[in-house]
Amino acid sequence: MSRLIDPLLRPSSIALIGASAKPGKIGNIVMRNLTAGGHRLYAVNPNEEEILGRRCYGSISEIPNSVDMAVIVLPSHKSVEATRDCALKGVGVVVVSSSGFAESGEDGRRLESALLEAVNGTDTRILGPNTMGVYVPSASLDTLFISPERGPRPRAGGVAMISQSGAVAVSFLGMAEETGLGVSACVCVGNKCDINELELIEHFGNDPETRCISMYLESFSDGRRFVELSREVSLKKPMVILKSGRTQAGARAANSHTGAVAASSDLAVKGALRQAGVARASEEVSLIDMSKAFSLADHIRGGRICVVASAGGFGVIATDLIESENSAPSLRMARLSKETKSALEEILPSFTSVQNPVDLTAEVSDQMYDEVLGALQTDPGVDAIMMSLELQPPNVTRQLVKIAAERSSGQIPIIASVFARDATSVLREATVTGLVAVPTLDRCVRLLNALAERGLRLRREN
Amino acid sequence: MSRLIDPLLRPSSIALIGASAKPGKIGNIVMRNLTAGGHRLYAVNPNEEEILGRRCYGSISEIPNSVDMAVIVLPSHKSVEATRDCALKGVGVVVVSSSGFAESGEDGRRLESALLEAVNGTDTRILGPNTMGVYVPSASLDTLFISPERGPRPRAGGVAMISQSGAVAVSFLGMAEETGLGVSACVCVGNKCDINELELIEHFGNDPETRCISMYLESFSDGRRFVELSREVSLKKPMVILKSGRTQAGARAANSHTGAVAASSDLAVKGALRQAGVARASEEVSLIDMSKAFSLADHIRGGRICVVASAGGFGVIATDLIESENSAPSLRMARLSKETKSALEEILPSFTSVQNPVDLTAEVSDQMYDEVLGALQTDPGVDAIMMSLELQPPNVTRQLVKIAAERSSGQIPIIASVFARDATSVLREATVTGLVAVPTLDRCVRLLNALAERGLRLRREN
Repeated sequence: MSRLIDPLLRPSSIALIGASAKPGKIGNIVMRNLTAGGHRLYAVNPNEEEILGRRCYGSISEIPNSVDMAVIVLPSHKSVEATRDCALKGVGVVVVSSSGFAESGEDGRRLESALLEAVNGTDTRILGPNTMGVYVPSASLDTLFISPERGPRPRAGGVAMISQSGAVAVSFLGMAEETGLGVSACVCVGNKCDINELELIEHFGNDPETRCISMYLESFSDGRRFVELSREVSLKKPMVILKSGRTQAGARAANSHTGAVAASSDLAVKGALRQAGVARASEEVSLIDMSKAFSLADHIRGGRICVVASAGGFGVIATDLIESENSAPSLRMARLSKETKSALEEILPSFTSVQNPVDLTAEVSDQMYDEVLGALQTDPGVDAIMMSLELQPPNVTRQLVKIAAERSSGQIPIIASVFARDATSVLREATVTGLVAVPTLDRCVRLLNALAERGLRLRREN
Repeated sequence: MSRLIDPLLRPSSIALIGASAKPGKIGNIVMRNLTAGGHRLYAVNPNEEEILGRRCYGSISEIPNSVDMAVIVLPSHKSVEATRDCALKGVGVVVVSSSGFAESGEDGRRLESALLEAVNGTDTRILGPNTMGVYVPSASLDTLFISPERGPRPRAGGVAMISQSGAVAVSFLGMAEETGLGVSACVCVGNKCDINELELIEHFGNDPETRCISMYLESFSDGRRFVELSREVSLKKPMVILKSGRTQAGARAANSHTGAVAASSDLAVKGALRQAGVARASEEVSLIDMSKAFSLADHIRGGRICVVASAGGFGVIATDLIESENSAPSLRMARLSKETKSALEEILPSFTSVQNPVDLTAEVSDQMYDEVLGALQTDPGVDAIMMSLELQPPNVTRQLVKIAAERSSGQIPIIASVFARDATSVLREATVTGLVAVPTLDRCVRLLNALAERGLRLRREN
């Protein structure tokens, strides 16, 4: 295992083949990103003497020391020869970034076979081709061929991301950064000619840094093995997938994107994922939301939700979403106990009727919120609290985020939908303090449903 | 008509009953908001001499001039008497902000009857009770009892918003402001004891400033009349509603929020809305998205969509969403004509296969995008273009927003999903320049579906 994982995720020496001194060129962007990591780094380019202050080698064979990882940023036809050189050199993992392989027709497919042929009989492994690269913040590893200005990188944290698309990965990392969510690693598998999702799932399943495995896949490298493996891994930690190529047209599009050959039918995929215990995201934002929820909260024990809002209308909308079979099949509104209702009556303004959704009205204060959350958390009929966190009322402050985060660390999680002038920074603060928060009621309910489904499965299967 | 509309939306004199000198008090917040408008403004409070530099009157009867609108920010029981004084004074519209009326049980219902009784036999009309107020930027009218710091106000524009919930209205206005969307008016109808959605729909239907009528309603004041009226109005301009109380639990929650008695069943509501030609939003973000799309683009002529992306994975995800019966029943992927394909072949990088979704790859530039959009717009088989606007690739710039906006003003609209580091400001720039743009593929597809459904209806019924 570590023969793959170490050079892929924790290489100590890296060669960049196709390094460039020209700002804006991919060979320059990657060089900069790699330089920032502080690894033993070798630039390879026969036409340059020096790049970013480093000596430039004419080929990988000239490098005097061993090389764990080689990143190749040459055009497709030149990448094959460079990969052969890497195999001769005994490089652990070769990252082949270029497109123009199996995704681009017959010629490309031949080229991809030649690529595999180049490492045949050696221990050298290939990531890609057609890959954006690897990002591992805790190892300061960043081979992505996009600058951090264009594609912000998140901090180190609990989400492992495996993506068949570089752009989806970059979007994922950007959203993670914006919302304060940390990742343990992001691996873009591209056309998956060699390294595929299976070895990575196995690794992340045992990786103590990883709390949730998130995936964007257009195809499965081995569907049966995926289900077997995931079934086991997902009992230990949550897994979520955005599987595209769901429709026929989508599958055709996937084929010309990463050469992916989609599974027979999406219905089969759906059944397999359920069996495997892998949650499914329908688009890119769900994927980041569910990664956030799973890595911070793992699951909720059941589907009985209590809604708390200071905006009465939001309470009503949330109730509709929770009770709707369509948006949240596994949720329902909790029935509050007599004890809870009496406790709430003491706390709430007198003109408010005590029920679920709990309407705190514009009279709400930080303290009132704190007390209400506390009272609800003692109700055995409540599995989770959905909090519509509004910072408009005059007597609530940003402190409310901390209050909710602290309360949420208890037995009964709180999942928040944030409405505030400065929502992005509130969401970031929430994530960093461990409170699962998203910007809309709709997304909040979808999260709760995913967490409840995981909770129900764990109860069933453990 | 103007007997209601003028004092409600364009009053020239306003009295604030319950004005306060104390910062933070509602009577002070509203006073500040009203003062900023530059209307003839009278503060009423028997215990003060002067508020914010204005003379304070002991009661409305002491005001020497006529009063078009009176805003009452007193507790519920005192609001009834104040309303009676307003009726005697001949005030046009009384805005009763207090809660504690029909939404809060038997006593409240009696109080609400007394409120109506107070204007009986006079020309005085009541907005509310339990209302956040009225906001009309083009008339500098702002009676909302929340400060602009807590609840940002959008600029003047084409969306008329009618809301039964103050908080939903404030959230709507805040999201509109953030995304650069303008409103013609926002009227919070609250418990609707007198003024309800019907007169407002009729007015906005004929209002040249209004391009889209958006609503948050928990109940219909007269369902049959709503359908008749909307059917007619929606042929002229798009209407969209977030109707809550869809589920039984939601309906109960609505009842204790605004005293709303929801219609018999949501299935009936669904049928009625379809008959009425009113689009339905399922939650608060859909409502703002659809308001944006309808006010900027009105409709698209059909459901044949061409997807353009520089991130191949996004193209695949978008294809899935468009072809899925669930997320977009009225859309399908367009088949590009031979002519379009040849034109694209000239523009795109050689390794790209030309098809829908069009994959521009990371080699995309502003100019390439411009040419591709132009080529697609001449294809008779394309009804609209879904553009995944990514600002990550090295050769695209913020200019792309302008390019897309200009192209979108032609026959074939472009609807964009934005992924960029500074997404909020990109979205705002898009909206202001007339390009419909939202932050996710999912929301983009939902919009396209709503626009196509309107296009199909207009074709059927005109």
